[in-house]
Amino acid sequence: MKQFRILIDCTDKKGLVYKISKLFFELELNILSNHEFVDSENDKFFMRSVVEGNIEEDILRKKLENILDSNVNLNLVAPGKKNIVLMVTKESHCLGDILIAYEAGELEANIIAVVSNYDLLQPLVEKFNIPYFCVSHLDLDRDTHETKVLECLSQFKDIDYIVLAKYMRILTPNFVKAYATKIINIHHSFLPSFIGANPYKQAHERGVKIIGATAHFVTNDLDEGPIISQDVINVKHDHSWQDMRGAGRDVEKITLSRALKLVLEDRIFVHKNKTVIF
Amino acid sequence: MKQFRILIDCTDKKGLVYKISKLFFELELNILSNHEFVDSENDKFFMRSVVEGNIEEDILRKKLENILDSNVNLNLVAPGKKNIVLMVTKESHCLGDILIAYEAGELEANIIAVVSNYDLLQPLVEKFNIPYFCVSHLDLDRDTHETKVLECLSQFKDIDYIVLAKYMRILTPNFVKAYATKIINIHHSFLPSFIGANPYKQAHERGVKIIGATAHFVTNDLDEGPIISQDVINVKHDHSWQDMRGAGRDVEKITLSRALKLVLEDRIFVHKNKTVIF
Amino acid sequence: MKQFRILIDCTDKKGLVYKISKLFFELELNILSNHEFVDSENDKFFMRSVVEGNIEEDILRKKLENILDSNVNLNLVAPGKKNIVLMVTKESHCLGDILIAYEAGELEANIIAVVSNYDLLQPLVEKFNIPYFCVSHLDLDRDTHETKVLECLSQFKDIDYIVLAKYMRILTPNFVKAYATKIINIHHSFLPSFIGANPYKQAHERGVKIIGATAHFVTNDLDEGPIISQDVINVKHDHSWQDMRGAGRDVEKITLSRALKLVLEDRIFVHKNKTVIF
Amino acid sequence: MKQFRILIDCTDKKGLVYKISKLFFELELNILSNHEFVDSENDKFFMRSVVEGNIEEDILRKKLENILDSNVNLNLVAPGKKNIVLMVTKESHCLGDILIAYEAGELEANIIAVVSNYDLLQPLVEKFNIPYFCVSHLDLDRDTHETKVLECLSQFKDIDYIVLAKYMRILTPNFVKAYATKIINIHHSFLPSFIGANPYKQAHERGVKIIGATAHFVTNDLDEGPIISQDVINVKHDHSWQDMRGAGRDVEKITLSRALKLVLEDRIFVHKNKTVIF
Repeated sequence: MKQFRILIDCTDKKGLVYKISKLFFELELNILSNHEFVDSENDKFFMRSVVEGNIEEDILRKKLENILDSNVNLNLVAPGKKNIVLMVTKESHCLGDILIAYEAGELEANIIAVVSNYDLLQPLVEKFNIPYFCVSHLDLDRDTHETKVLECLSQFKDIDYIVLAKYMRILTPNFVKAYATKIINIHHSFLPSFIGANPYKQAHERGVKIIGATAHFVTNDLDEGPIISQDVINVKHDHSWQDMRGAGRDVEKITLSRALKLVLEDRIFVHKNKTVIF
Repeated sequence: MKQFRILIDCTDKKGLVYKISKLFFELELNILSNHEFVDSENDKFFMRSVVEGNIEEDILRKKLENILDSNVNLNLVAPGKKNIVLMVTKESHCLGDILIAYEAGELEANIIAVVSNYDLLQPLVEKFNIPYFCVSHLDLDRDTHETKVLECLSQFKDIDYIVLAKYMRILTPNFVKAYATKIINIHHSFLPSFIGANPYKQAHERGVKIIGATAHFVTNDLDEGPIISQDVINVKHDHSWQDMRGAGRDVEKITLSRALKLVLEDRIFVHKNKTVIF
Repeated sequence: MKQFRILIDCTDKKGLVYKISKLFFELELNILSNHEFVDSENDKFFMRSVVEGNIEEDILRKKLENILDSNVNLNLVAPGKKNIVLMVTKESHCLGDILIAYEAGELEANIIAVVSNYDLLQPLVEKFNIPYFCVSHLDLDRDTHETKVLECLSQFKDIDYIVLAKYMRILTPNFVKAYATKIINIHHSFLPSFIGANPYKQAHERGVKIIGATAHFVTNDLDEGPIISQDVINVKHDHSWQDMRGAGRDVEKITLSRALKLVLEDRIFVHKNKTVIF
Repeated sequence: MKQFRILIDCTDKKGLVYKISKLFFELELNILSNHEFVDSENDKFFMRSVVEGNIEEDILRKKLENILDSNVNLNLVAPGKKNIVLMVTKESHCLGDILIAYEAGELEANIIAVVSNYDLLQPLVEKFNIPYFCVSHLDLDRDTHETKVLECLSQFKDIDYIVLAKYMRILTPNFVKAYATKIINIHHSFLPSFIGANPYKQAHERGVKIIGATAHFVTNDLDEGPIISQDVINVKHDHSWQDMRGAGRDVEKITLSRALKLVLEDRIFVHKNKTVIF
């Protein structure tokens, strides 16, 4: 018995569920879970099914392609570990949260490398026998540095996702293009509040009573990509911005780890600048 | 064009979605939303579809019955206002929250009566031109009082739901049986914590840091029925139990109103002592 | 025995607590609660005490003034009902939440009037025997309309607070100045996200996973005043912006009512653009 | 300049704040923060001050003792790293969360050892150069095993706190007595719901819509000690109990780490079976 995750999205049309469920029935697949959503505003249909059966991936793909129109996006995935690269700067809380889950076998991923612009987190990462690459940005302009980072990444053939686990440098469109739809980031504010630098200082300055964090796909617009998950925490007048940053660490790591899990389980559709998550 | 809510639950079996979606396709129904869940532990299938089309309710029902096995539970509902009776004692926050939504036309219901064991809330209810029935329990034993309440309720033919909006008396199995699966209650604790009398005092005594409220269907076991919704709020050492009760009012009213909305929109399946909510 | 709330804020200085607690001791006052906060960044001291004793308000005030420097802000209040005016447009959920609490005697306030630019909510308000004033903005420019609103308000001598309970018009600096530090507003977003018109549409457009509401004092900058309270609720891809607005109603009313309670209990200091809340 | 945390609790009495603040003034101490609480139900006064000044700890202690009655509990602490021992069984999420914070220097503690009844987590702990002691319970009765654990712990002289970071064995009164008020535990439910074994299975069985975790001091009654912190997370009908356990991990680790921080910062008073936390 093999398991498959089938993600379909297309222009909405009568009979889609019928055609797909007919195929599942004929192929004698067990439907383990099934989610559908019609975005009526944009006339879009989204469906994610997890099925189980005695069939080869290639054959199932072909069968699905046969019944679906050519303009349908089909993503057929057999569950398994994806290859991810983590990028970090100096803070360890998001990185550490992922490493601990990884070590416990709770992550559906291989961490093939950690890349950083500092060597500060090298000792931590190497405890977990993961290669660490320090590509310092010192004395380099943004483009030169990024080119070096891209060179570093290029040695890894099959990167499924790059996880910016508090990587504190802005990526250029060039970088984003090279790994389009494959980069997720944790932003340390409740977006769209406090875009940009030092959101905790901004939040403190504004006197908000709740702070948050946002995990999102990275697009060319800084902190403007499709949001995957968000979470918040209450703060009070006696929180300095440093206290906010401290309290925010828990929210950041939980939010990023939750988003990473959704990504690794193929639960997310991206449409325009938004996500549909089953 | 008519709209229908179709709720189906039965033993899980291959081909159910196929058969149902085939029927929808043949009848040229638009599927506005579609949710499925397989409870693999209990081998149960749940499905809720909202469809739209040119078909009479009776015909659709017959068509559905034709394709479904006899052991399938089918609930076909045309959206519309349900008849509800509210029962209260002395507190107005849950009642008031429902009245304000009702007045604004936000409730998919007719409030046909409010029944209470006190006359305290009569002035409030009558502002909204809703009949108020005071059935005092003074000098009556439990059974005699309840019989009088049941008599009072018996004048209303088509009660869809009875909402215990802080009705502070325990119902006997006799009452529960008369309105089986039709009674929802708000309990002022985060069940199963603090079952029974004065949960805020119990919570204060225990020194909890979070209190909550639970909306549930009423069964014979006090505070043990299927849970519909729950919510919580943080408390601190400086909350007296009266402060907790005050803070809890918001949680209670929100939780009950949210549950009532789910009930009125036919979003809930009850299976054993649990709910499946789409 | 009389009760007083004493709010003191000034530049931080050694011995303040000593001097004040010495006075309380000499006057044989019971300290029911005592909160202090030093904003070390701005070198500011805040203190709120609730005390009880056999002393006249005037005498206590004089005694306090004698021991405090001239640059200290002293606010001495005897608990009691404050006079508030509610301003609304068409939506009833925030208004209704306040009315129900008011009717139950849970509000430390007299609602002396409700003012609106529509007559839609008149029937609801008059159920509660509260004067309703409709000052239509139709065919009037902003200044002319606001002048009429100010005239309407001018008939009430002792307005302690004006509560904008979903009043959907922007106030001019002229209005804000007339009731400086006395106006609180509910904004239907998690500020500073989605300032301005239709925040739910903005939130839906952005694809956020959490929406919120913010109660704040009104200053000249739209939605930029000192924040009193905020709360949030999770949303998903299947929430249309109308669903978000519906879900947001609960958050709005709870957040505004909570802020109103804090205001009426004299728990808030405003310093620069922020609040200190005990 | 030295910093001190001063915690005072006693029967409430007029003039306490006056006497203490007078001493602070005379000793020219800066008050960095000051919190008081009167539990009027139990007639108890609690105060925590953080002060800064040119004074020796012994002298300050003596001065405080001089002005306070003999029945006053005084706890004077100079900030610094406390010695903690972690106890674990097989799960790494709480342990890992503490280790990552420890490695980052965010923990006001020395982890002097990790003790477990399995060797499973030894590799993880030793990455961080912390001694790991496996005291297997296999083939031992409860008392014999616990005696061996106590022997193991006895080699460490100055244990300030023992943190049960998912130590899945029940401690006997003998153990609890040996480290009275020094043991904190994370229970994987929202106490007092689901006391005892496998709370996630119990929660799933009950069909709750929210699950939680509780950090508390350990007393002789299982899961009945004073609660330090609690947090919750929403669940749905499609969470199996294993899913609940997975989702609960985040709540458990955050709740325990938060409680540990409060403990290490000397922010907690325990009175009867409750905590007062500043």
